[in-house]
Amino acid sequence: MQHTYPLDAWCIRETSFDAASNFLDETLFALGNGYIGLRGTPEEGYAGPAGTSLDGTYLNGFYESEPIQYPENAYGLARNNQFMLNVPNAKGIVLWVGEERFDLLQGHLESYERRLDFRSGLLQREIVWQAPSGRRLQVRSRRLVSFASKHLFAIEFTVTPLGFDGALRLECAVDGVVRNLEAGDDPRVGSATTGPALALTGTELAPHFAALQQRTHNSGFTLVSAAAQVIDVQHIFAQRVEGSRLVQSYSVDARDGQAVRLVKYGCYYSSRDHAADELMARSRAELEAARGLGFDQLAAQQEAYLADFWAQADVEVAGDDALQQGIRFNQFHLLQSVGRDGKTNISAKGVTGEGYEGHYFWDTEIYIFPFFLYNKPEIARKLLEYRYAGLPAARERARQMSHAKGALYPWRTIAGEECSAYFPAGTAQYHINADVAYSIKQYMDATGDDAYLLQYGAEILIETARIWLGIGSYNRAGAFVINEVTGPDEYTALVNNNYYTNAMAKLHMQFAAAAAERIERDYPQEWPRIAAAVALADGELEELRRAADAMLLPYDAALGIHPQDDSFLDKKVWDFAGTPADKYPLLLNYHPMVIYRHQVCKQADVVLALLLLSEQFTLDDKKRDFDYYEAVTTHDSSLSSCIFSIIASEVGYAGKAYDYFMETARLDLDNTHGNTHYGVHTAAMAGTWLGVAYGFGGMRVVNGEVRFAPTLPKQWQHYQFRIHLHGSLLQVRVSPGGTQYTLLRGEALAFRHRGVPVTITPAAPVQELA
Amino acid sequence: MQHTYPLDAWCIRETSFDAASNFLDETLFALGNGYIGLRGTPEEGYAGPAGTSLDGTYLNGFYESEPIQYPENAYGLARNNQFMLNVPNAKGIVLWVGEERFDLLQGHLESYERRLDFRSGLLQREIVWQAPSGRRLQVRSRRLVSFASKHLFAIEFTVTPLGFDGALRLECAVDGVVRNLEAGDDPRVGSATTGPALALTGTELAPHFAALQQRTHNSGFTLVSAAAQVIDVQHIFAQRVEGSRLVQSYSVDARDGQAVRLVKYGCYYSSRDHAADELMARSRAELEAARGLGFDQLAAQQEAYLADFWAQADVEVAGDDALQQGIRFNQFHLLQSVGRDGKTNISAKGVTGEGYEGHYFWDTEIYIFPFFLYNKPEIARKLLEYRYAGLPAARERARQMSHAKGALYPWRTIAGEECSAYFPAGTAQYHINADVAYSIKQYMDATGDDAYLLQYGAEILIETARIWLGIGSYNRAGAFVINEVTGPDEYTALVNNNYYTNAMAKLHMQFAAAAAERIERDYPQEWPRIAAAVALADGELEELRRAADAMLLPYDAALGIHPQDDSFLDKKVWDFAGTPADKYPLLLNYHPMVIYRHQVCKQADVVLALLLLSEQFTLDDKKRDFDYYEAVTTHDSSLSSCIFSIIASEVGYAGKAYDYFMETARLDLDNTHGNTHYGVHTAAMAGTWLGVAYGFGGMRVVNGEVRFAPTLPKQWQHYQFRIHLHGSLLQVRVSPGGTQYTLLRGEALAFRHRGVPVTITPAAPVQELA
Repeated sequence: MQHTYPLDAWCIRETSFDAASNFLDETLFALGNGYIGLRGTPEEGYAGPAGTSLDGTYLNGFYESEPIQYPENAYGLARNNQFMLNVPNAKGIVLWVGEERFDLLQGHLESYERRLDFRSGLLQREIVWQAPSGRRLQVRSRRLVSFASKHLFAIEFTVTPLGFDGALRLECAVDGVVRNLEAGDDPRVGSATTGPALALTGTELAPHFAALQQRTHNSGFTLVSAAAQVIDVQHIFAQRVEGSRLVQSYSVDARDGQAVRLVKYGCYYSSRDHAADELMARSRAELEAARGLGFDQLAAQQEAYLADFWAQADVEVAGDDALQQGIRFNQFHLLQSVGRDGKTNISAKGVTGEGYEGHYFWDTEIYIFPFFLYNKPEIARKLLEYRYAGLPAARERARQMSHAKGALYPWRTIAGEECSAYFPAGTAQYHINADVAYSIKQYMDATGDDAYLLQYGAEILIETARIWLGIGSYNRAGAFVINEVTGPDEYTALVNNNYYTNAMAKLHMQFAAAAAERIERDYPQEWPRIAAAVALADGELEELRRAADAMLLPYDAALGIHPQDDSFLDKKVWDFAGTPADKYPLLLNYHPMVIYRHQVCKQADVVLALLLLSEQFTLDDKKRDFDYYEAVTTHDSSLSSCIFSIIASEVGYAGKAYDYFMETARLDLDNTHGNTHYGVHTAAMAGTWLGVAYGFGGMRVVNGEVRFAPTLPKQWQHYQFRIHLHGSLLQVRVSPGGTQYTLLRGEALAFRHRGVPVTITPAAPVQELA
Repeated sequence: MQHTYPLDAWCIRETSFDAASNFLDETLFALGNGYIGLRGTPEEGYAGPAGTSLDGTYLNGFYESEPIQYPENAYGLARNNQFMLNVPNAKGIVLWVGEERFDLLQGHLESYERRLDFRSGLLQREIVWQAPSGRRLQVRSRRLVSFASKHLFAIEFTVTPLGFDGALRLECAVDGVVRNLEAGDDPRVGSATTGPALALTGTELAPHFAALQQRTHNSGFTLVSAAAQVIDVQHIFAQRVEGSRLVQSYSVDARDGQAVRLVKYGCYYSSRDHAADELMARSRAELEAARGLGFDQLAAQQEAYLADFWAQADVEVAGDDALQQGIRFNQFHLLQSVGRDGKTNISAKGVTGEGYEGHYFWDTEIYIFPFFLYNKPEIARKLLEYRYAGLPAARERARQMSHAKGALYPWRTIAGEECSAYFPAGTAQYHINADVAYSIKQYMDATGDDAYLLQYGAEILIETARIWLGIGSYNRAGAFVINEVTGPDEYTALVNNNYYTNAMAKLHMQFAAAAAERIERDYPQEWPRIAAAVALADGELEELRRAADAMLLPYDAALGIHPQDDSFLDKKVWDFAGTPADKYPLLLNYHPMVIYRHQVCKQADVVLALLLLSEQFTLDDKKRDFDYYEAVTTHDSSLSSCIFSIIASEVGYAGKAYDYFMETARLDLDNTHGNTHYGVHTAAMAGTWLGVAYGFGGMRVVNGEVRFAPTLPKQWQHYQFRIHLHGSLLQVRVSPGGTQYTLLRGEALAFRHRGVPVTITPAAPVQELA
């Protein structure tokens, strides 16, 4: 069910509760801190119809592993799936009014508001509820998942009898009886286990403290899920154990008009981070410290963290309130979703749902990384460190794929092992290697952080670049060709010379060779260690350069466009006119072969190359490619519209740029892809920021130099965004009068505005340009 | 374990029993009649080490169905697997000597012979066994699966005490406690169920008669498995029921030197053939009739049937006893394996094992069909009728694949539903449609059976030919192209313009259009019915002709060869020199993508087209193509060598022709592919016959005319084969002096010998030609 939220620039808010939209709302109102994710299900639980809820709790990077069962096996297919577990629900607070259970779907809601605030970071509810018996209550709750403490969340739950005195009981649970969604026909949802994945290995109960210790069967992790409560009125305490469900209850003689306030602190510790035998003690300490601080203090920390974030990252758009809300919603959810410990990343759905099983994809490098790079660069660095941590697994995968040297990153994974169970749209996407290298290039361009390059980046670059020499070969004409790969567009698979792949591989090999040569020259004391770590052979850098120089980049002279691959233009154009609207997305309505044999794209592919390799194309090239591919692209992928928006801006299609941008900006809020109940679309969320900065702002980085060429959509009064660059923070504000560049922090910066060099300094921090 | 059998022109024979080769021997000594298949496991059972036996019983076309579980689902993937069930074992006869159980692996084998005779059709054993206690016995058994009665088999089991008097007990079982093999990593073996597939629904026990009635869970078939015994000495009869295992036992006071003879008759009836409530009565009647006839009478019927078969089909090769044995072994097993009721076909392993799950493939049409067409044409017609029976399922599959019209045959199936769980090497092999059409063309060329064409063939031809208009399209140059299909060579997948597919589709469309036009002209009273049955639209035949005329047939002028597909020659040649012998077959040692991106073939593909479309190529073409593809073909498929042998003959490579032929002729007897324990390779067996007739005999059919161009391998003194043609039977005998053509039966025949027209008549039935 679609749901329209009252517009507010800094929050989303609803004033009625509806079972029909609950599944979606659980996603939209989800809280997270890059580690813990709590879906927006009420503390008191939800007892609506089947299929209208998934009361999920997720820990980024915490997974179970299961053998992948193929109906027809083959050598080298991904062996195990890793999937994000639904972990014990520690947020539950069930309220009993006498014998009546507080339930939004029973009795009568006199007033109701739920609000997720992007500045406070709190999920708040204010409810006046009349029980079936007629007793009235005010219920208020505030919930946060701490940005300051990775393992912690907290809930303040306040109940006030209205017009009666009587017994209330608050039952606080740590509930280990949870399961993941079962797999369905939609390949975009899970294929996860059907049985309980966590085995109980211990419990600890103390007054006001309850903890479960569990173990995963296959991945071998230990997890402690704990909660502690503080209540500010006289009460009778009781507790009980129901298998893997621990309940601590507080019975209170409540008085009319007098608030009963309970604060519940929860935490999760797993052996992915700490020794298994420390987890219980760490949980006790974490919750003890939180009780010491109290909810208000945690809320103040949260607000301070977010104030700092918005000072760096806020995008302002004047003239469209819905859009402004959507943009900030997206940025807020990105911040909530991204792992920042070097061991975790950001999954396709963040920690808000089970779509794509919590897997990390290229989405990070190509869509999400720039958002963090320019808005919160320390997180960007952590994302790069994650890839370094995955290098051993990528080397092993390369061996499985018969590459004697090098590393091949997995198409989808949590901890580094390839988890793609359909290789034509998985392992075949070798471009992942170039995408990772591209993010390193972006990072180096924006930060000049040679320490990263020396410690991590160089090794990744060389190991990943080598794969092209293994998979590619020289054809009879002497061109370097890359056969049997799949590009970003998954409506075509196992093709030869995918333009995007070849062009990105070319840049990748050039950049790797150049980086290696620069290190050898500038850091001669570091180079031998790096060369040894990758066992660099004589002449190998030259081999990379030679292959890059000879790379085949398809071009069709008759049409003046870049074919998506060798055979793309020989295929029949999809019969769009004859395809009813209910047959989209095509992938749910046509056999892959039927799709593969047509000219039809799920998403930007060549058009994405026009952005990432912008300087390699003339404006005429871009326009012809845009026109050609726009006509054959369905945008069935949520990754598509933002890229089309950006290139539309560049080639002067202002109307299209705006329309495509709008499709991305509120994709989840308006549930335009119809599957946000399975989680937010983090890449599309980041695509919104790309659409502002790269699209309307015309930002590109060419040879390390930042260029802007802003345009202002006629629908807006002005817009502004900020970017971190070499330690400084630059604000770009575009209004009808021109563009105002403001150095908000740091040292002088040089860039170009419509081709003209500009320098901005602390002494003269503002420049206005037409 | 490899096993060398004493050479005998008309049997295989072993004189020792070895657990290490038992699994393989169970296949080689299997009996069948095209419906029932009994593996060669001894009547008394086999208790050797795990993994050295599969005591299987199969019924051609009797299957269970199971949903295929994909780790990543997609629209239109094959939904259900059908697999040949291991049905109750009704052949068991356990012999007890006092408290000692007769067991070839216990005690001492004084003498042992097992023989499968191709003329009697009997599997016989003669054994002198000393029990661990020292008591000696002679055991003789004779087993047959009746060619005369589809549902019947019989076993004569004779025991003679040597040097003692004492109690013997013969326990005859109908054992329903059976399972299929579990799936392993080898994609060529089963993916079948792990639980029991048959549920017991009833039993019937009467003196000397025992029957189980069972039901499959998903496919919904009822099966009755029954046995009846006759014993010729005084005995005490007893019986017991152990769940799904029925045992009837005969206790005898045996005397030194006096034979105890028991005959067990067994039968299987299923609801695929008859109403479920008739099966028990039919079983009783079948066994009653068999008891009336007695074993010797059944054996006489068997021998008569085979005498007739060999009179039509025998291939004689003088000069190589091992080869002679191999050829007859292959022909005998083909006869044992082929379904002949119009509802069943011949599976990749016949009814001898569970490899490929009892599925039927294109192997039938392209490899096996000619053997029956020219040696036992009434069976060939039944194979074509099977495809007609599958037309409704093929139409449904075409709809799933988004073809508005037409029929798409399944790549692998039992009852007609597509069962291929890996579509790039399954459904993508659209050439199956052309293969079916090709078999119809062969049949029409050899028989002129217009009745078949009118009743069945025309409808198949038009419905299958239409698919090309759906999957193909015209490229920018106006050529008709077929994209994203897989040809016969499974080391390349999802390619554009596979030569074999395009060339066969061209012929298919031409033949379908011509057949339709001829029917309209010659059978005007039949045509409206056929046109209505296929809902032929105006201009559709012209569309077929136009596409056929415009068909793109890849040719590389520089090399003078026909590329396997558009991109084949742009791929790197596989590093054969760097590939150790233990890395073959490649499919078990390299990821499919690694294989796909190289020039490397599992099997004949273009080279197969050189045979099937022989007249479309010059001899020079053939030689260049042969040379090119031979260098990049691993022959990892058992379908490959026979085709290379045939073309080697044609292009004058006598040595290679011989070597490739020898690889095929004893493939199973010598277990050269190492997997004959999972069943015989029926297509390769038929390939032996193709190698003789098409290869050394140089037989081709061009425009309906048979041509011979015989050569005689220098290793042989002479060879001869026979073919049915238009109701006549022709013998071709090739010796150093020349070729002798003999009309064995029927009317005059015209053909060509080395290009020269020859006519042979009943009046002058023999011609000798140089």
